[in-house]
This record gives sequence, C-alpha cells and structure tokens, in this order.
Amino acid sequence: MTDVRTMGFTDVRTTNLAVVLSHLRTSGPSSRAAIAASTGLNKATVSSLTSDLIDQRLLRETGTSGNRIGRPGTSLALDGSAYAAIGIQVAADSMTALAIDFAGDQIIRWHRALGAHRAGEIITLAQRAATRVRQQGRSVLGLTVAVPGLVDENGVVRISPTLGWSDLDLRTLVAGSLRQPGLVVTVANQATTAALTNKDPNSIYVSGTAGIEAGVIAHGRPLHGARGFTGQIGRFTLGPAGAPTLHDLAGIEPLVRRALTGFDPESLTDLAPAVEQVAVQARAGDAATLAALRDTGRHLGQGLAMLANLTDPSVIVLGDHYASLAGWLIPAVEAELAAQVLAPSGIRVVASDLGLHAAALGGALSHLDRVDNGSLPKAV
Amino acid sequence: MTDVRTMGFTDVRTTNLAVVLSHLRTSGPSSRAAIAASTGLNKATVSSLTSDLIDQRLLRETGTSGNRIGRPGTSLALDGSAYAAIGIQVAADSMTALAIDFAGDQIIRWHRALGAHRAGEIITLAQRAATRVRQQGRSVLGLTVAVPGLVDENGVVRISPTLGWSDLDLRTLVAGSLRQPGLVVTVANQATTAALTNKDPNSIYVSGTAGIEAGVIAHGRPLHGARGFTGQIGRFTLGPAGAPTLHDLAGIEPLVRRALTGFDPESLTDLAPAVEQVAVQARAGDAATLAALRDTGRHLGQGLAMLANLTDPSVIVLGDHYASLAGWLIPAVEAELAAQVLAPSGIRVVASDLGLHAAALGGALSHLDRVDNGSLPKAV
Repeated sequence: MTDVRTMGFTDVRTTNLAVVLSHLRTSGPSSRAAIAASTGLNKATVSSLTSDLIDQRLLRETGTSGNRIGRPGTSLALDGSAYAAIGIQVAADSMTALAIDFAGDQIIRWHRALGAHRAGEIITLAQRAATRVRQQGRSVLGLTVAVPGLVDENGVVRISPTLGWSDLDLRTLVAGSLRQPGLVVTVANQATTAALTNKDPNSIYVSGTAGIEAGVIAHGRPLHGARGFTGQIGRFTLGPAGAPTLHDLAGIEPLVRRALTGFDPESLTDLAPAVEQVAVQARAGDAATLAALRDTGRHLGQGLAMLANLTDPSVIVLGDHYASLAGWLIPAVEAELAAQVLAPSGIRVVASDLGLHAAALGGALSHLDRVDNGSLPKAV
Repeated sequence: MTDVRTMGFTDVRTTNLAVVLSHLRTSGPSSRAAIAASTGLNKATVSSLTSDLIDQRLLRETGTSGNRIGRPGTSLALDGSAYAAIGIQVAADSMTALAIDFAGDQIIRWHRALGAHRAGEIITLAQRAATRVRQQGRSVLGLTVAVPGLVDENGVVRISPTLGWSDLDLRTLVAGSLRQPGLVVTVANQATTAALTNKDPNSIYVSGTAGIEAGVIAHGRPLHGARGFTGQIGRFTLGPAGAPTLHDLAGIEPLVRRALTGFDPESLTDLAPAVEQVAVQARAGDAATLAALRDTGRHLGQGLAMLANLTDPSVIVLGDHYASLAGWLIPAVEAELAAQVLAPSGIRVVASDLGLHAAALGGALSHLDRVDNGSLPKAV
C-alpha cells in the first residue's frame, strides 16, 4: 500500500523549492541565512533557489533585517505582485468570488445572488474575476469553482441535489470560457474545499447551507476516497424505514422553518436573511427559537459525534450558516459529543470566522499550495 | 499542510531498497534484469541492492528463470528462512496468535480461549509464539497485539469496553516479557489492524465481534485521526434521546439474542458457537432467524451507508462474525446502500475470507511492511 518512487535530481530541486516557499509562507520574511538554518539546506543552495524564485517573481527582497548590513541580512518575502489565484463558491442562492495574490493577501471579494441561469452566471463571474486580476497586472495561477454535491476528478458535477445538476461538465465550461492556455481550472466539492482553510491536520469543516456536508482533513490531506464522493453527512440516517436524516433533524432550512412562524418556504431564495432573523429572535430570548436551536444543536451533535467516533479529529469547524448561530449550537453540540464519543475529550468545536466564503478562499489557496509544492508557474 | 523534507543519500538508498522489496512482494520472483526494467533503477544499482539484501537474508536466489543461462537469468525471491513477524488478535472471549515468515507464508496459527486473567494470558501467548518462531531458527521482526477499543500511540489501551480495560500499558507489559532488545512491539486497534489485510487503497474492514468497529483505509493508509481513536461505529446513534445505537440495532450479540430462543446471555462466553447456531437455523429456513438477519442487515446497511457517504470507499469487507453470516446480510446491506448513498453505485460489499484472524494477520503484515519500506533488521 506504499507508493515509493526513486527521486532524481529534478525532484530534489523541486522539493527544495517547495521547502523554501513553505518556510516563507509559514514563518514570514526571513534572511537567506535564516532560511538555511531553518530548512537544513546549505547556503549556496538557498542562494541559488531564492535567486530563481526572485526571477520568477515569487519572492522579493524586502530590505535589511535587524541591524545587519549588506546582503546576508536582506530579508526575503513572498511576492504578491505577479500572480493571483481565484476561488468561486457556489451555494443554492448565491455565489462568492475571491482572489488572493501569491503572498496570500485578498485582492477581490464579490458576493452575488445566483439566479436561474446558474452555469452561465458562474462562467460570467469567473471571467470578470480573471479580467480584474489581469487588469491589476497579475497572472492567474488557477481558478477553482467549489460546489455542493459530488464532483469527479475531471471536474464534472456528477450529482448536486442543491443545484439540480447531474453530469454537468462545469470544468470544461469554465476553462473554455477563460481562454488562457495553461490556466489550471478545477471544480471541487465546497465542503472539502472549505476544509483546506483549516489549520489542523486532523480536522473537519461542517458546511451548513442548503444541505449539510463535511470536509474532512486527515493526516493533513483532504479525505478523497475512491472517487472524491465524500462528505455527504446530511444523508446520515439510522432507525426504522423512513427515519429522518441528519439534514431533516439538524439542517439550516428545517431550523428556519421551525423558528420563523409564518415562514413561507417558497420565498426561500436566500437563506442568509432568514438565518439572521433566527439569530435576532434568539438574542431577544424567544423561547420557541431557542428550543429549535437546542434541538438542532443536539442532533447536529449526534452527527458530529459519529464523525468523531469514526475519524478522531482535533477540531470541528462549524461553517457557513452554522457559524452565524454557533453561540447557540455549540453548547448542545459539545454536550452530545461528551455523551456519545468513546474517546476522552480533546475535540474542540469552533465557529468558522470565514463567513460564507471559506470554500472560495480554500479554492484559491489550493493553487498557492500547488506552487508551494514545487509546481512553479512558467516565467511571466 | 504538506510535509516536505530534503532527501539525502541514505534516504535514496533506503527508498531504493524499499522499491526492490515491494516489487518482489507484489510481482513474485524476478531476475535482476526484470527488477531493473520494472523499477527504473539501473542494473548496477539493482545488483548492489540485491547483494545487500541477500547478505541480510531478506532475499535468496532461486535458480535460473526461463531458458536463459547464467547470472542474468537467476531469479530472486523473498527469503522466509531468517525472519518472522507475529500478530496476536484479542477478542472478548478468545485470542489468536499468527506468525508469518518474511516471504509471507504462515508458520503459526493458534486459537485459544481467553479467560479471566487477560493480560497475563496474552503475555504468555506472545512468549510462546516468539519462542516457537526462534526454535524454527527465525528472528522475530516484530509483534503486534490487536485489541478492540482505543489504543494510543504508546500502545496504552486507553478504553476497551469489550475487555473492561482503561489505561492499561499493554505494550510495555508485552515488550518487557519478551526480553529481546530491538524487537518492535506494538499494540493497536483490531479493526484498523485487520484493515491492513485489505487490498484496496480506499476500503473499510467492518469487524463484528462483541462490538462493531471499522478499520478505514484511505489513500492506502489507515485512517489514524489525531490520536488513533478511530473506527468506533458501534456508537453511531441518531434520533431522540436514548435512541438505539448501531450496535443495538446491528450488533452480533443483539442478533444472537433475537435469533436464538431461550438464549441465556450469561452463558455467552464464546460468540462463535452461537453465531454458528444462527447460521444453522437460517439454512434450515427458520422464519424468525431470517427476519432477525434481514433486520440486522438493514441496520448494518444504514451504518455502512453513513461510512460510504462520508468516506467513499471502493470496497467494504464484512469481517469476523459478520463474515459467517454474510450470505444473509449482504443483500439487505446492498439494498440499503443503494437507497441511502448519494454517489452512483460502485461500492462492493464482500465477506472477509480470513475468519477470526484478520487482525492477527494484519498485525504481522505491518512488520513486513515496515521492512519493505526500508527499515531493515540488523544483520543476524
């Protein structure tokens, strides 16, 4: 079950480039001497590698560090000026485009309503984001579209109940519309993509939007499975035939229906205002709303206890609309984890601080990560 | 989230040794020329590596292959004569010791009842197995004890409801009793260890014994999580407070209680005869037994559908007592998977053919795998 290959000279250099980039991304600006000391590479190698990376406009010199004089004290930092990466997150009713430069700084974030012509609207947003990035003088390293549902390795959306899609070759549609040879376009599940923003190598991002999905990071990598069709926890069910699913019991839409009296399900074109109204009523102490939140939290806790009993994460991040309601949900979730998980306590449950754009950010980050792992762009 | 390191000369040689051993384990006896052709290593390197491995008694020459004459046609094979590895599998009521030589051939398999002095009996069995292996002229590469429940990275059994243990430092007890410096002793969860016998890189071994546990292989590696406390699927529950767990609904002991009229739970010192009696009644067409099996299969299918929706395996292996009843369980399991899993079909459900010793075999194999990955034993 191992996949060991011999490593030639090219791979060693690629690996070393990745070591330098990863070091600077993690530790911030450093001198060549500090990079050598931290990575174990010798100084001549570091000089050669960083020289290449400066030529490629992935690194820049930032002046002298500390009190030292001359080249040895010159700090190097990631250079955000030449490249950017784009993530587009698609929900039932809205989409978010986000771009970051190679240094990781956010340069675009647009939120748009999503209407009836979904694929076309996504393509238009992707084109506009790419155009804006290029107008800023940056080359696009890659673009990821993150969608709810099952996406195969070719970027075909095999089944998305939320979007009403089956077998839609979204990657080819988007890549074809961008007309930039060599631009890497990927399409991926939104919860798995959002989980790329997690810091912990064993962690779960739970996305509560129109459905419930989980992105699992195991041993520092997204859990991919045989076909990439992972994370469909909203379908969890156990009991008699017809027993409710985790989505029925702990989904955002069922919660909204319970908490908002006179709520018209047909009017549900955007969940965000309804979720905000639930929060308003909860803050006002409305008993029915608080009971609905407790019940949702308890069932969500059952679902997360199953994830925890199976995968033993360090951290579970409540994302998307769950994050807006986390103050009410987390106590019930934690009580359920304490009751149901066999392992001694040690799992933190936290609210995402990335609002409704975690998957857009994760999608953009995936392209920086690709470069950091040695897949350098062609020189501009 | 990447873990990239520079690779020096020693590591390259280690990697190449691993490449040669893995090739021979997968492909069977091969000539040096065939090894070179298949691995991409040059012939001089292959000659040097195989010479070392023959000196270490990990490989042996097996005469000429095909019609060729002389050294280039001499076949090399894994040498089972010098080393062996031991796995011991502990269940509620029994234990199995299994040893394989370095070529993978089974040289010991003992099944024993497990009485009240569990840790002591396990230690005695481990000592006897190690002694027998040494009497055969082989050195013990390593020994793994596989137990139900949660085992930490130091081999301390943190919680085992089945065995009634908490915080028992079983690894130190066993290693101390074997008195062989350098002998690698590990203690691990039994379902995860059994899953090491799976061939597929994305697969699940479901262990049905006194409890239900799952060993998940993801991307070719056991799913370890933050602390190794994975696979506790028997505790899955969803619904009102006090709702039954997956073990209540699909466990072997609850099945036996339903199927065997007049069954005395106090007499349950060994599940195997009771499971065999269930199979006898099912073969005789007993309606109540068949109904109990269908119900167990349906609920087991719900549990496995949750695993499948979360982790997208290619194969699910029904192991231990589930394997004995698989003919009745699998149709209900497959129907439930078809109904509950969002992904298009593509998950095979099969019965393990390893009886009650999959974890013992997996434990022994883990030590061969360690050697195959370049951690060679000290020369004998």
